[in-house]
Amino acid sequence: MRQGQQTSAGIGSLSPGHSEAADKASLRRNNLGVVLRRLRESGEQSRTKLATALGLPKATVSVLVADLIRRGLVREGELDRAGAVGRPHRMVDLDGRWICGIGAEVGVDHITVIALNLRGTVVHEERLALDVPSLTHQAALHKVGDLVADCLHAVGEQGMAAVGITLVTQGSIDRDSGTVRVAVNFGWRDVPACAELRERLGPHAPPVLVENDAEGGALAEYLTTGGADPQELVYVTGGIGVGGAGILDGKLRRGSEIGHMRFGRDDRPCACGRTGCWEASVGLQAFLDRAADPSDPVHDRSIDLAERLGQLLARADAGDQRTLAALAEIADDLALGLAVLVDVLNPSRIVLGGYFAVFGRYLIDKAQRHLDDRRISPTATHVVVTASTLGLSNAAQGGAYLALETIFHDPSVVEVRESQQPG
Amino acid sequence: MRQGQQTSAGIGSLSPGHSEAADKASLRRNNLGVVLRRLRESGEQSRTKLATALGLPKATVSVLVADLIRRGLVREGELDRAGAVGRPHRMVDLDGRWICGIGAEVGVDHITVIALNLRGTVVHEERLALDVPSLTHQAALHKVGDLVADCLHAVGEQGMAAVGITLVTQGSIDRDSGTVRVAVNFGWRDVPACAELRERLGPHAPPVLVENDAEGGALAEYLTTGGADPQELVYVTGGIGVGGAGILDGKLRRGSEIGHMRFGRDDRPCACGRTGCWEASVGLQAFLDRAADPSDPVHDRSIDLAERLGQLLARADAGDQRTLAALAEIADDLALGLAVLVDVLNPSRIVLGGYFAVFGRYLIDKAQRHLDDRRISPTATHVVVTASTLGLSNAAQGGAYLALETIFHDPSVVEVRESQQPG
Repeated sequence: MRQGQQTSAGIGSLSPGHSEAADKASLRRNNLGVVLRRLRESGEQSRTKLATALGLPKATVSVLVADLIRRGLVREGELDRAGAVGRPHRMVDLDGRWICGIGAEVGVDHITVIALNLRGTVVHEERLALDVPSLTHQAALHKVGDLVADCLHAVGEQGMAAVGITLVTQGSIDRDSGTVRVAVNFGWRDVPACAELRERLGPHAPPVLVENDAEGGALAEYLTTGGADPQELVYVTGGIGVGGAGILDGKLRRGSEIGHMRFGRDDRPCACGRTGCWEASVGLQAFLDRAADPSDPVHDRSIDLAERLGQLLARADAGDQRTLAALAEIADDLALGLAVLVDVLNPSRIVLGGYFAVFGRYLIDKAQRHLDDRRISPTATHVVVTASTLGLSNAAQGGAYLALETIFHDPSVVEVRESQQPG
Repeated sequence: MRQGQQTSAGIGSLSPGHSEAADKASLRRNNLGVVLRRLRESGEQSRTKLATALGLPKATVSVLVADLIRRGLVREGELDRAGAVGRPHRMVDLDGRWICGIGAEVGVDHITVIALNLRGTVVHEERLALDVPSLTHQAALHKVGDLVADCLHAVGEQGMAAVGITLVTQGSIDRDSGTVRVAVNFGWRDVPACAELRERLGPHAPPVLVENDAEGGALAEYLTTGGADPQELVYVTGGIGVGGAGILDGKLRRGSEIGHMRFGRDDRPCACGRTGCWEASVGLQAFLDRAADPSDPVHDRSIDLAERLGQLLARADAGDQRTLAALAEIADDLALGLAVLVDVLNPSRIVLGGYFAVFGRYLIDKAQRHLDDRRISPTATHVVVTASTLGLSNAAQGGAYLALETIFHDPSVVEVRESQQPG
């Protein structure tokens, strides 16, 4: 029995009126988005099923679907013959042919650019190994611009339009001004990243947003495990930094600094200048330091991270005691922090990303057991810990989803395609 | 610059469609609630001002207000002559005369029953000192029933109808079945509290809900500091137990167990059976143990808590070293936990309740300084810590607000009053 789920049924939202007032025009725009999101969550279905699920008259749903088809956002598919008495219905689904969103992630040792169509399918992907901290931010963003320009060209060749680009980076972001305020691992401070990328791309490029990597990652996890009910998860990603973000009641909660929760368990110095931060005991550096001597090639940053992690995973799988001991320590400290997240947020799902996901089979059972053992309240949420299945590019995918979100929020921003009348 | 605030502007809600789809009937019900909530937040105002604030046509607002007047939820007031050119407008405001909600709190050493009218004004209050752990739960709930029956009678005499009763207790609550699952400080386990109270009150009593005290307290703080933007706060209350709840994006987040966050800072045993919980170092018992020998009357539970705390406050104000040292230690440990809440939730406001509020002047500055000093990100929320001004009855007030929330969510549940036509 989930406590968190009862909120809306019991007392509804406490939010103030002005954000909720609606007239008929906004009602229609809202309902277009509702239909589009429902298709994202539940996949191909008939208009009848949509109408039932949404509690709207079938005629209304048909009008909304026709509108979405004219905009190239929905297409008709197979006939629904399941259990049909009488005339079968034609199914409708998201149309992946015309629209995509682009995510461009700048990491410590790579740049990744991904384009996703409206259905969340990867339509373009490019990853470039790059020692970002050794470059000026101008040089790094110029490289990003090159890759995004390639991507725009490639999706254009496929007949698709990109509705937006999200630059995803570490650190603290001022989204309104498109500035990366502080990204310690890159040595960036007050970098006007959106403006620089826009300049590189020219005036005809789609809008550019900037997003924090943990928040982008949380978004990607949420939307690819789509339709999950309850609509929430806490995403925790392990890299040089440890970040995370929660999606609570279907909304991304920004601005967490979970890597810097202080437990006072040890006095390891953290990159932030303090001691005892969670990141200092479970971040990638702490793991590498525990698992291997400084001369070990797994410390060599000129080798791609995925390769170094693969090597450590092979050692663990082969029963290497030092690697296993390091993982056991990480698991303990990881569980300690996850327990605090559970105490504060009471989520039903925790998804681990970054290197935590790579070593999922050595970390998750232990963390799960720890969380199960310490539940006090019989009515508390039973939290389930899983590993991300999106790999190391999930933050870039989150950026691409974020770019598409504009459409799911208000499909009317996409113009009617004159050539795309319903058949 | 607040990161948390940007969520809705940037990508809107990610929540699925089916909860948001709307037809015209639900649109009207929704807009009735929107008007009523706007009046709660912004107070008396003209229909014109309401229409502007809500982005609705003035004619629509006039129809909605007329409907609310017929239901006895809104009344006309003064003429608005402020800066008026032409005909002055008549102001409208919440009508406090007809409807109230009742909150009944069971504490370790008291029962408090409060009725609030639609305007949040206390229209009835009764507090009874009672050693609840020494009674059976039947006996305790029978006492609650007596006080609630008195309250129903008293508000009836004032011509008011109670729309609901919320029983507020410690511990973990199953709200669907109205059961208190575990309340360690009372020794309750699986107590069907709603059913027992309903039986005592008879078939004509209004609906009974049950709510956790920290969550009720959070609600009361949120609604009495009403209209605050952003719509969020984290409430942390100090008693024998330490509890808390967040209101995030205008929604109460349930099921936190913040008193049991483990920092590993010390090995004090906690009532939950574990060690190192935050509650064990900052709960009321830890404070009393630090501040006074066991023989000191401040430990005597037969004396009302407010009186014992008043005595300790007088000692602190007189410069008593032991009391001040105890408060300094509590402040340090309090700051440590608040910092974790900030790292995870990034709230803009923290409100301290219970004994933390009584000793606010000894705790808040230190906690605030600690939080200010450890901000990493320049874009992080500047959190402000304040003390609750609602006193020790704020959980009961939260219960009363919760009972009223049904009306604010859907005013159409209140019948039209035939005698109450607009004049």
